[in-house]
Amino acid sequence: MTTVRLRPFYCPVESRIHPDVDLIEERAIAWLDRVRFYRDETERMRIVGTNSAEFYARFAPDGITENVEAAAHWVYWGFAFDDARCDSGEFARSPHEFLVMAGKAQRALENPWHPPPDGDPMVLALQDIGRTFAACATPVQVRRFAEAHRAWLFGVAWQIACRGRGRMPDLAEYTAIRLNSAGGPPTLAMLEIAAGQEVPAAEMDSPAVRALTEMTILVASWDNDLHSYGKEEDEGETGINLINVLRARHGLGAEEAVVRAYALRDRVMNRFLRLRSEVAAKPVSAALRTYLDGLGHAIRGNTDWALRVPRYHGYTGPGEDPRWADAPSDPCPDPVPIPAITWWWDSL
Amino acid sequence: MTTVRLRPFYCPVESRIHPDVDLIEERAIAWLDRVRFYRDETERMRIVGTNSAEFYARFAPDGITENVEAAAHWVYWGFAFDDARCDSGEFARSPHEFLVMAGKAQRALENPWHPPPDGDPMVLALQDIGRTFAACATPVQVRRFAEAHRAWLFGVAWQIACRGRGRMPDLAEYTAIRLNSAGGPPTLAMLEIAAGQEVPAAEMDSPAVRALTEMTILVASWDNDLHSYGKEEDEGETGINLINVLRARHGLGAEEAVVRAYALRDRVMNRFLRLRSEVAAKPVSAALRTYLDGLGHAIRGNTDWALRVPRYHGYTGPGEDPRWADAPSDPCPDPVPIPAITWWWDSL
Repeated sequence: MTTVRLRPFYCPVESRIHPDVDLIEERAIAWLDRVRFYRDETERMRIVGTNSAEFYARFAPDGITENVEAAAHWVYWGFAFDDARCDSGEFARSPHEFLVMAGKAQRALENPWHPPPDGDPMVLALQDIGRTFAACATPVQVRRFAEAHRAWLFGVAWQIACRGRGRMPDLAEYTAIRLNSAGGPPTLAMLEIAAGQEVPAAEMDSPAVRALTEMTILVASWDNDLHSYGKEEDEGETGINLINVLRARHGLGAEEAVVRAYALRDRVMNRFLRLRSEVAAKPVSAALRTYLDGLGHAIRGNTDWALRVPRYHGYTGPGEDPRWADAPSDPCPDPVPIPAITWWWDSL
Repeated sequence: MTTVRLRPFYCPVESRIHPDVDLIEERAIAWLDRVRFYRDETERMRIVGTNSAEFYARFAPDGITENVEAAAHWVYWGFAFDDARCDSGEFARSPHEFLVMAGKAQRALENPWHPPPDGDPMVLALQDIGRTFAACATPVQVRRFAEAHRAWLFGVAWQIACRGRGRMPDLAEYTAIRLNSAGGPPTLAMLEIAAGQEVPAAEMDSPAVRALTEMTILVASWDNDLHSYGKEEDEGETGINLINVLRARHGLGAEEAVVRAYALRDRVMNRFLRLRSEVAAKPVSAALRTYLDGLGHAIRGNTDWALRVPRYHGYTGPGEDPRWADAPSDPCPDPVPIPAITWWWDSL
């Protein structure tokens, strides 16, 4: 167990949660027991213990109850998939096997009405989610989710390729991996589904909104690296995470790496807040306003959730909430020196 | 060298080519010599010999000249990438190395203004293409192309995973692979860029248009399998293609496999023609009409091109054009028995 401790997170966003969170959780767990993609009671408890309903109720505090529940289904599924097939188990070091399994799952999602031949319970559950989205979301939202889902699996495959070779990526490569591998793209693609408001394509695909989406993903993913650092060390995983990248590839000590990680994260957070204000000051659609709010709730809700969830509490210990920071640990407004994301500081 | 011969292709679509094809080719080759991602004159000649300008001039016979040229840049690049890094070379059997290389390339495309650290000439050329698209296409088109590009690389990685294990996929798996691995998604994403007309998201992402896009990809990809069968046999490649899948996994002889391949292809072609007529009979946008025309040009143009290109002529021999068929070799209107695509026959 590492001795590195969490520091205050800089995230000046209101903490909120959906008023129907208990109902959403109750229904989502009933769904879990209906689709039954877990293998045994231990796995079931682990999945239930991800608090995925609470997680998404924080991402979409004003969402349509049924749609937030649909999103929560995927979050439960995603955590289960991540644990069983990405971070550990037979697929975790073998891109050969992972790609075949994940490729079939992705195609089954895109075409959720016809079950694939082999009857994999996780794939059938994903198809159930796909059918629910087809019913409660627009075709554009469904397509965006499917593309985001593939981006996630592509990122996971890349991370597995590194792990399989026992190679720690440097910060430039890791950032490009992490933009997809932490599940950020599908998780955020569900924001507009939960809200029941389709963001017009010209807005969603504009460079500024793309950048804001990516920044949200990266901050939340880096935060997850910080939250899960203890868990991963405990379980003897290969530990491809921000802290280990900075230690192994950039020569920093453990404490230095944590300071640097917060500095990087806070600089992105700052850029996010500034650019989001600029975009919101323009005459944009109501759906985009809701989405931009949702990005903020995602960053804040991700940490609110992480601080309470059994999944991560090996790190801080229960009840040991870090304080929230009033100011960024590094206020520098310049681009961070990572080529994959420098464009976020361009004129957008 | 196999003795299997091409049969007549059923493709009742007019054969057309862009009037500026020569100019497009001249400019695109000048571009090739400017970005210089080839390693030597042999590789340069091989790339030029893909006739990529002609290829895309057939896909978009009415496109904006400059935009068709931009698309041709990517086609030259894509063939070069395919030959050097997908079908042969150090990456062709190792998903570990392929994923790292392809992941970096994909991220560089998404963010084409900042070169990645390692200066890979192919990646820099891809960024040049990305910047050209950013200038000549809409943000929505750019985003669609980027997503399609990732889908392609994901499919290639899956195919490489099979090859790396020496495992021939069955028809169900191969179809899901082939929908992405042949480069169909990015090639078709450029149709609306070449046309200079953005298809509204609600139309593009509707199930019917998604199905039509996928059908076009699959017919063209299967046709490429037929065209390149001889080439791949000659070069001793591992031969994951439709014919070998049917022979190795479904117990068919060489001739039987060819008959079966044409039957499958013609049944999809028929479904495409019927569904396209249904969609076109509705009040749709002008941009969608152009796109639907483009899908037809893509299928026809792909074979018109393949019959002339040095890349494939080992199969038929120069001048040995197959006749065009007046009717499908299998007129059966029922869904083909492949779960990944059965949904194309659903009520859309």
